[in-house]
Amino acid sequence: MTYCVGIKLNAGLVFLSDSRTNAGVDNISTFRKMIVYEKPGDRFMVLLSAGNLSISQSVREILQVEQLKEREDSEPVTIWNATSMFDAARVLGQAVRHVYDRDAAALKYSGVEFNVNLIFGGQIRGEGMRLFQVYSAGNFIEATPETPYFQVGEYKYGKPVLDRVITPDTPLEEAAKCALVSMDSTMKSNLSVGPPLDLVVYEANRFETEQIVCIDMQNPYFRMLHSSWGQKLREVFDSLDDPVWDDMKAPAGGSINKPLKKITRPEEKLI
Amino acid sequence: MTYCVGIKLNAGLVFLSDSRTNAGVDNISTFRKMIVYEKPGDRFMVLLSAGNLSISQSVREILQVEQLKEREDSEPVTIWNATSMFDAARVLGQAVRHVYDRDAAALKYSGVEFNVNLIFGGQIRGEGMRLFQVYSAGNFIEATPETPYFQVGEYKYGKPVLDRVITPDTPLEEAAKCALVSMDSTMKSNLSVGPPLDLVVYEANRFETEQIVCIDMQNPYFRMLHSSWGQKLREVFDSLDDPVWDDMKAPAGGSINKPLKKITRPEEKLI
Repeated sequence: MTYCVGIKLNAGLVFLSDSRTNAGVDNISTFRKMIVYEKPGDRFMVLLSAGNLSISQSVREILQVEQLKEREDSEPVTIWNATSMFDAARVLGQAVRHVYDRDAAALKYSGVEFNVNLIFGGQIRGEGMRLFQVYSAGNFIEATPETPYFQVGEYKYGKPVLDRVITPDTPLEEAAKCALVSMDSTMKSNLSVGPPLDLVVYEANRFETEQIVCIDMQNPYFRMLHSSWGQKLREVFDSLDDPVWDDMKAPAGGSINKPLKKITRPEEKLI
Repeated sequence: MTYCVGIKLNAGLVFLSDSRTNAGVDNISTFRKMIVYEKPGDRFMVLLSAGNLSISQSVREILQVEQLKEREDSEPVTIWNATSMFDAARVLGQAVRHVYDRDAAALKYSGVEFNVNLIFGGQIRGEGMRLFQVYSAGNFIEATPETPYFQVGEYKYGKPVLDRVITPDTPLEEAAKCALVSMDSTMKSNLSVGPPLDLVVYEANRFETEQIVCIDMQNPYFRMLHSSWGQKLREVFDSLDDPVWDDMKAPAGGSINKPLKKITRPEEKLI
């Protein structure tokens, strides 16, 4: 499978992806799922991909040269000359549709769904940062202050910590830590998500970044995070009181629900 | 959806279920998903159910009177006279198959999958406690010391805390607390899992229990658990160091993975 997360904060953007792919549990490989596009001083964009690897690789290849033409005589729009991230996301959506036109019928014939899920974010000079999730149909949605992050792939295990921590005001380093904890929880529970990890942190209005790192299981920071998080979670659990039966059974104000009736004979009714 | 968990410990058994069902997010109802069967001094059994409600209700109704006959002249086995939990689970599997025979073709015709997932555990005098997960085909698996719990329904959000805490040596009260934290995490992330909750704790070799409680959002213990867990998780997160970029980028011993190359021009190759 895959796990990728993209986060949009007031201070910047954070992107994190794993690199495990699998065609069945007996066929695991390493493919990196992040691409960074940068024209220093002009634009900075990151693409994260989940889904069928042949589709996402084709989309990535095509995106480099994809051209969107509104009319016959209009200048073609690419991710390199688009004047907004919205237009760049449209170019990406069109690249997805080109792969669909080329492959979907043959995939369907083989019983394979046309499945690709993308996170695409960045900043183009002249506007603020933007973050999109692009679907298999080439349509897309944009992150907002209420929902400042997107996940693709195995999203469930890593979602609770994002919901507890991330707001638009979260500092960049804290968001990077949160993304790594989210990834750690996911890798612990789903074997088809695995290292190395690619992490990118982008500061607003820089139009480039040097904060690109590849994290494997030898990385001292990630090892610290992994062991401390697990150990401290356990300490928190132990610090909570165990239930006391007499208190549990005492009727609480406003409670209308009764404990279940036991069934004690074959002929007894359930309700 | 649904979330149910059954845990087998050396000290006894713990069962917990939610009570929300939904046919689309615009059609939410409350149905309790636990049944307790008890013949004091002789047998104690609990059934938890997830999946299509019409199927699980039919299975529960039929189970009361289901009879398993090995041969024409053999005594029929029911959950009330079975001499082992294994045989009782076989009776349950046969009840599932009876509902399949009656409903599956018509369901398929309407495009509805025959989907039911059951947890069935307890103790019959003469043997130890046993815990089973029963599938839609009526086949089943049994919990072992390495995997002492089963979940059905929305299992992902609540699984990490079970994996961190539960072993066969876990005390009953601690396991009940763990099941409730697991349920709390699930309800926070999936709206289709909801209160009231049914909790049963069974002590080994008692063949009955008085520890049956219905927990709704007025329950003081559950409220304490909910707020303390969230708050302390956040404290643990804050207590972990943020990443420091220079440390992150320093090559670690044994690391072979390089940071991603940036793409800076349309004609640049990805690999």
